[in-house]
Amino acid sequence: MDVIIKGGTIVTASDQYVADIGVEGEQITRIGQSLRANGARVVDATGMYVIPGAIDAHTHLDMPFGGTVTSDDFETGQIAAACGGTTTHVDYCLQSVGGTLHEALATWRGKAQGKAVIDYGFHLAVTDLNANVMAELPAMVNEGITSFKCFMAYKGVFQIDDATLFQLLEQARELGALVNVHAENGDVVDLLTKRLISEGMTAPRYHAASRPLEVEAEATHRAVALAELARAPLNVVHMTCEASVRHVNEARARGLLDIHGETCPQYLLLNVDQYDEPDFQGAKYVMSPPLRDRKENAFLWRQLAAGNLETLMTDHCSFRMSDQKSLGKDNFAKIPNGIPGIETRVPIVFSEGVGKGRISLQTMVAAMSTNPARMYGMFPKKGCIAVGSDADIVLIDPKRRVVLSASTLHQHTDYCPYEGLEVEGYPVVTISRGEVIYENDQFVGSKGRGKYIKRGQYQAP
Amino acid sequence: MDVIIKGGTIVTASDQYVADIGVEGEQITRIGQSLRANGARVVDATGMYVIPGAIDAHTHLDMPFGGTVTSDDFETGQIAAACGGTTTHVDYCLQSVGGTLHEALATWRGKAQGKAVIDYGFHLAVTDLNANVMAELPAMVNEGITSFKCFMAYKGVFQIDDATLFQLLEQARELGALVNVHAENGDVVDLLTKRLISEGMTAPRYHAASRPLEVEAEATHRAVALAELARAPLNVVHMTCEASVRHVNEARARGLLDIHGETCPQYLLLNVDQYDEPDFQGAKYVMSPPLRDRKENAFLWRQLAAGNLETLMTDHCSFRMSDQKSLGKDNFAKIPNGIPGIETRVPIVFSEGVGKGRISLQTMVAAMSTNPARMYGMFPKKGCIAVGSDADIVLIDPKRRVVLSASTLHQHTDYCPYEGLEVEGYPVVTISRGEVIYENDQFVGSKGRGKYIKRGQYQAP
Amino acid sequence: MDVIIKGGTIVTASDQYVADIGVEGEQITRIGQSLRANGARVVDATGMYVIPGAIDAHTHLDMPFGGTVTSDDFETGQIAAACGGTTTHVDYCLQSVGGTLHEALATWRGKAQGKAVIDYGFHLAVTDLNANVMAELPAMVNEGITSFKCFMAYKGVFQIDDATLFQLLEQARELGALVNVHAENGDVVDLLTKRLISEGMTAPRYHAASRPLEVEAEATHRAVALAELARAPLNVVHMTCEASVRHVNEARARGLLDIHGETCPQYLLLNVDQYDEPDFQGAKYVMSPPLRDRKENAFLWRQLAAGNLETLMTDHCSFRMSDQKSLGKDNFAKIPNGIPGIETRVPIVFSEGVGKGRISLQTMVAAMSTNPARMYGMFPKKGCIAVGSDADIVLIDPKRRVVLSASTLHQHTDYCPYEGLEVEGYPVVTISRGEVIYENDQFVGSKGRGKYIKRGQYQAP
Amino acid sequence: MDVIIKGGTIVTASDQYVADIGVEGEQITRIGQSLRANGARVVDATGMYVIPGAIDAHTHLDMPFGGTVTSDDFETGQIAAACGGTTTHVDYCLQSVGGTLHEALATWRGKAQGKAVIDYGFHLAVTDLNANVMAELPAMVNEGITSFKCFMAYKGVFQIDDATLFQLLEQARELGALVNVHAENGDVVDLLTKRLISEGMTAPRYHAASRPLEVEAEATHRAVALAELARAPLNVVHMTCEASVRHVNEARARGLLDIHGETCPQYLLLNVDQYDEPDFQGAKYVMSPPLRDRKENAFLWRQLAAGNLETLMTDHCSFRMSDQKSLGKDNFAKIPNGIPGIETRVPIVFSEGVGKGRISLQTMVAAMSTNPARMYGMFPKKGCIAVGSDADIVLIDPKRRVVLSASTLHQHTDYCPYEGLEVEGYPVVTISRGEVIYENDQFVGSKGRGKYIKRGQYQAP
Repeated sequence: MDVIIKGGTIVTASDQYVADIGVEGEQITRIGQSLRANGARVVDATGMYVIPGAIDAHTHLDMPFGGTVTSDDFETGQIAAACGGTTTHVDYCLQSVGGTLHEALATWRGKAQGKAVIDYGFHLAVTDLNANVMAELPAMVNEGITSFKCFMAYKGVFQIDDATLFQLLEQARELGALVNVHAENGDVVDLLTKRLISEGMTAPRYHAASRPLEVEAEATHRAVALAELARAPLNVVHMTCEASVRHVNEARARGLLDIHGETCPQYLLLNVDQYDEPDFQGAKYVMSPPLRDRKENAFLWRQLAAGNLETLMTDHCSFRMSDQKSLGKDNFAKIPNGIPGIETRVPIVFSEGVGKGRISLQTMVAAMSTNPARMYGMFPKKGCIAVGSDADIVLIDPKRRVVLSASTLHQHTDYCPYEGLEVEGYPVVTISRGEVIYENDQFVGSKGRGKYIKRGQYQAP
Repeated sequence: MDVIIKGGTIVTASDQYVADIGVEGEQITRIGQSLRANGARVVDATGMYVIPGAIDAHTHLDMPFGGTVTSDDFETGQIAAACGGTTTHVDYCLQSVGGTLHEALATWRGKAQGKAVIDYGFHLAVTDLNANVMAELPAMVNEGITSFKCFMAYKGVFQIDDATLFQLLEQARELGALVNVHAENGDVVDLLTKRLISEGMTAPRYHAASRPLEVEAEATHRAVALAELARAPLNVVHMTCEASVRHVNEARARGLLDIHGETCPQYLLLNVDQYDEPDFQGAKYVMSPPLRDRKENAFLWRQLAAGNLETLMTDHCSFRMSDQKSLGKDNFAKIPNGIPGIETRVPIVFSEGVGKGRISLQTMVAAMSTNPARMYGMFPKKGCIAVGSDADIVLIDPKRRVVLSASTLHQHTDYCPYEGLEVEGYPVVTISRGEVIYENDQFVGSKGRGKYIKRGQYQAP
Repeated sequence: MDVIIKGGTIVTASDQYVADIGVEGEQITRIGQSLRANGARVVDATGMYVIPGAIDAHTHLDMPFGGTVTSDDFETGQIAAACGGTTTHVDYCLQSVGGTLHEALATWRGKAQGKAVIDYGFHLAVTDLNANVMAELPAMVNEGITSFKCFMAYKGVFQIDDATLFQLLEQARELGALVNVHAENGDVVDLLTKRLISEGMTAPRYHAASRPLEVEAEATHRAVALAELARAPLNVVHMTCEASVRHVNEARARGLLDIHGETCPQYLLLNVDQYDEPDFQGAKYVMSPPLRDRKENAFLWRQLAAGNLETLMTDHCSFRMSDQKSLGKDNFAKIPNGIPGIETRVPIVFSEGVGKGRISLQTMVAAMSTNPARMYGMFPKKGCIAVGSDADIVLIDPKRRVVLSASTLHQHTDYCPYEGLEVEGYPVVTISRGEVIYENDQFVGSKGRGKYIKRGQYQAP
Repeated sequence: MDVIIKGGTIVTASDQYVADIGVEGEQITRIGQSLRANGARVVDATGMYVIPGAIDAHTHLDMPFGGTVTSDDFETGQIAAACGGTTTHVDYCLQSVGGTLHEALATWRGKAQGKAVIDYGFHLAVTDLNANVMAELPAMVNEGITSFKCFMAYKGVFQIDDATLFQLLEQARELGALVNVHAENGDVVDLLTKRLISEGMTAPRYHAASRPLEVEAEATHRAVALAELARAPLNVVHMTCEASVRHVNEARARGLLDIHGETCPQYLLLNVDQYDEPDFQGAKYVMSPPLRDRKENAFLWRQLAAGNLETLMTDHCSFRMSDQKSLGKDNFAKIPNGIPGIETRVPIVFSEGVGKGRISLQTMVAAMSTNPARMYGMFPKKGCIAVGSDADIVLIDPKRRVVLSASTLHQHTDYCPYEGLEVEGYPVVTISRGEVIYENDQFVGSKGRGKYIKRGQYQAP
């Protein structure tokens, strides 16, 4: 035995019990009472929750967008992830319009190469689906890219038409892959945006007005309808409101158990009033879809508790206020869309969700580890604490209080959307494939140690 | 008094009673017991139902489509209408891509000029909405064109994008007009059609496969969502199935009483098995949306009875089997889409609907006269039997039995989709603005007598 | 011609037009332009709306309840009705526990005898359904009693069990009659009431707490379910909230077009805060079901506009504050349940509903005249303005402003729940079977002139 | 280590992996790769699924009913359970009308005493809730009775009124207990039954006619409504159809995550046609609620897969055809209600559910072990495979084929409702608290070894 995690309360997506975990090499090999050390490194987990490392399958590291590039690359972003209890990462690789998928994948693998500190994979966002690109899809799946993405918004940039979405859904079904969709009606967003700007409504608050929840709800319904017709699995990412989620729920009630919904901490905690913060501070929260009314926070927590929203990811897409968000000083449409969050997810969800009785520990583990591991083809290597699985393990100290602040977080940006929020409970040790990479508030792993994960087929959670 | 209609049972959208109707000039001036003739022409209505003449607000006369032209023009089509109990007509005028609305309207007014035998107006189908066309809309409304149309299908021909639909809805709201929408997801239809043809599935039955009900339901939801966001009235035409109608019903349940649905006799009586008729006879029923499963017939009758589908129009769009439908002999996608029905609607709805207890006489009058008169800005001049209204009146003999047949109908085509159906109850006299134009099975009016109706604003029914 | 109503705007449940109405004897015999007087009395209706007299089919006149008797009898109550634009009245006759239906009917006919000033009929509230009572039902229908009632609340007084309700529904279906139901779960109300009283919560405001909307919603669902199983028509009276109405709407959406809902002006205008009025004034509003949150007002208006709530009655059940409501000074459960309203319904609905754009004139006429006439077997004798119908006609002056006050109303009680409300539009002339019985703010008819109406079978509106 | 279960595939409600399990005394102490035997008994699990022993929390052993007593007592019933993969048992203890809860519990504990072979507890079915009985409830909870039951059917026998149900729900909430409800409208069932019998419709098939699904749906809605009002947890047992389940689903969609539904194998596999089996064989399937249409089978499987029906119990209530079911030879209402199934549940659900792809192994474990362990206060002692839990473990051989037959099953009755059904996959070893009690097709435990479980509070699954 190389490492023994001793005396913690192990939490899985269904169970909870006190035991020691024994790790040999990169894997868990034993779970039991009073495991003997015999020279192994002992990590004391007394009083801690021991959970499977979280998976973040919705991020945009080192991504060009709106004339700039997201401020976290695979090094800074993954270090932040590790320090926040995340051990597996799936980033969105973007096809260039006119470009091939192979090119896109090569570019993104290059971004991670030599920098990654935790294990990672890629989704492939398809922006231009011609016959040649269609022909590339099986090769992508062979490379372990078993999830694709479509944007129904960002007209003239990433936005695809319904024919593309439908064909991609059909192909994904045939290949055992999953389609993720950004659901907003880009035509209407584009119209409303231009109108607002032309009428001089340029402040960050008008970002929300340009993307009312009806455009999200409409696109969600459309994506679900096309997936139903294509008999394909679908995951609607970053869902923000009841009007949208009900379409996923209705599909599931009809027996379509491969239709899924994802949400993010920002939609659980923040709300549309944030855009009114003075001095352009509202720009911090400019992301798409935008923040909604306060009542949606409560709704989303309940849906998470009910298992209707099966994954809880970050949509980490960080920009600096100083020189990036500020590009839209005079025009909200030029504010780069996105918010940091790769590091704060686990503590926020633990403190605000589990700690406040909104969700159970089991639901937290399911939404951040087990469900995404299944859906993205990494289970049971990732996503659970079980004999034979990778020893990707996080210790949460439920009593540790931390005041969140950009000044102490590892995310490479100059603000934290939750600045000043005190959380109770925080990840204190992160283990990746048997190696302690975060402890004593320090990242202690090495740059480049993260491995590419060749993912398997989509599996319903 | 010029004409007295004597002893019939007058039916309105809410009431029913026996009385005489007195007409002076073109209008109803008196309703009472034992009106004295004093030299007026007396039309004996004993034992008859006396209803407001039906309005057909969904037709395509003299319309170019798929390399041919619909086989009924304003003369033959309107004579057939009159012989079938219809006294008011609103046809779809189509903007050419690249053309102006004024040009389109001038063209269509020319088609009616000198031919019309009943009163008529036009909707304007917008296919290409640029800034210039937007600027034409108020003028169109001033001309009495208070309803527009968008096609969400027919990719590359009439199909508009969501931005166009949304803008048109907003403009219509401002102008007091109504947007009619053909709701099918044209992107998916186009894909499925090309695939079926490429796989050799070219027979008429594959027309139905190329337009599954999910594409109608999706587009209906989308149109309703955009209308809700635009706070605009909307009418979804030719609805065929529960999956679609529920979106209209849900909107109304949310209090959106300006969201409406229309259906047609073909969706109430015919079903998808018709496409399997041998020897290319299935082509008779090739229309869009296509016929559905039998269970939808019953559903639609119930919705009509419940007042959820507020109008019942024909979508009359006639082609000959001999030289027009046959264009698609080897390719269902080349079969001109459409079905005749302008003449058979009233007898079919009376016999199959009222006669079989599915709907009341009041519902029949509401769906074919009063509701469209309100929605299309012609009430109370048209659409009711009331003092001061145009004397557009039809007598139905509830005992008259007729076997429907192309050989005896006045529609200018070589087939009848209901060939051989015996109806019980038939219009026996049609009066337009006080003039008897149909009696003794003969059209007795004169060509060119029909007048253009400058329609007023949309009004909820 | 005996009477001519000249120059008014006639409003029916579907139409609206300017014309004169000619009356001979008790009936309308002519509707037309410029009817000649020839010695007839001419009622000038210029600038007025001329509507079919309203029907009030939910009242409790001269009814023993809680140790007292409602303060309006058939004389005072019907005079108030006439002065408020109501020309037809159906009262609830109550079976005594242990008594026969014949006895009950004889008692109630006696109450009206010699006092009635407008035409009237009775529903029969069944409180004790044994085999003998079952055997009486056909005779009741022959007497023109084609509607029954069950109370699901008032445990130990009127409350019936589900077996009774189910059997009554089955019998009503066989006999062409309609069952009205007071839907509240009486078991739970009884428990909550006793608990509140025992805990010292005796003020009027606790009346609302003793009957939460869930008990109404539950009982509504149950009544609808039993009616569906019995395949019988059902009318849920005095509906107050979305939680209940949705069960009626869902039934109708399933095609059960004989399931109906009624509401009353108090649920459209008043709300639960009224119970907090100081000095026991909250007792004025103690009725069952109780007033709800403000948001339900808006919901109910929308449902009325949509035609989902088909009738709008008063549930007039008047008690004096001075010596009747005061019985419950120390115990809300002893406050006689009920509110006056037979006189104020038409002006309130016209002013707050039509005047404020919430419903159309057609909807108002449908909900107060045409629909109840059909459902309660009196159409087309009552409920419409049509040749051959009884000349029950009301003129509304849309410009007349009146401040509602118990001091000027004819209702025989010492308060008005809408005291001080100014309405715009008021009935100024009431005609019953051709006789003007109210004009110049005076009742001018004669006591005892009202006739018993032998009602026919239930008909769907 | 006393026992090692070697090389099997361990399945939990969320995970699945290959490992050995080590047992010391009565508990699991180790899970790992290549555990060393060191003298422990080794149970070879190669190629087997190793699951937490199933929990059967819905049975009626040794229960008086309709003049007879169920044919399985705690000895035969629990032996059958053990041979079928069930290791924990919660039986329904019934209060006598007029009797106390203490008496009832003493009686039922006596039935188990000296006979039980697996661990067990009791629910308490309350049939007569007066003040004294209310006062007993806390004591019952202290005894480990943390679940109660109400029957809404069986009029004049077990049926309670709504006041009783509501009070019990409130008390249960206060005490941390769960109310189980048999949801059928007993008033209507009683009426329909008497009518059918009086009309000579006495054959078993009329049992189904006497309890249409509407009576189940109505009562389900009512129970849910009362639980919502009481803010109490509720479990609706033996659900059979969509009409009922939708009420549970709608409650959960409103955020009421303590509203639960249970179903049973008979409702997943059998259907109403079974009642038509000749020669009174239909009596085998006489149970309440009755079997439904085939389409409900598919619906229920989907709901199970979706996690909407959280538990899958047997409602084992066995009677012999020879001398018990035959009591109703001439009157279906005298056929004792019930069906055997305690032994066949695990193999049937594995073969028909998991084997045919309808549900996952995880869902099977959740529905039969983990969820009931939580809801009935036994988690994590029971219901999971985890270090520290009782070693209640079952090995399923997925390849073993067995033809189900009364002649080979251990259930003490003369028929099997699934006679002749071949299942693929069967429990081959059952371990209870570390002791192998079933292997080689034999029960090898000892009578009386089963222990009473003092259960803790209700916990949401």
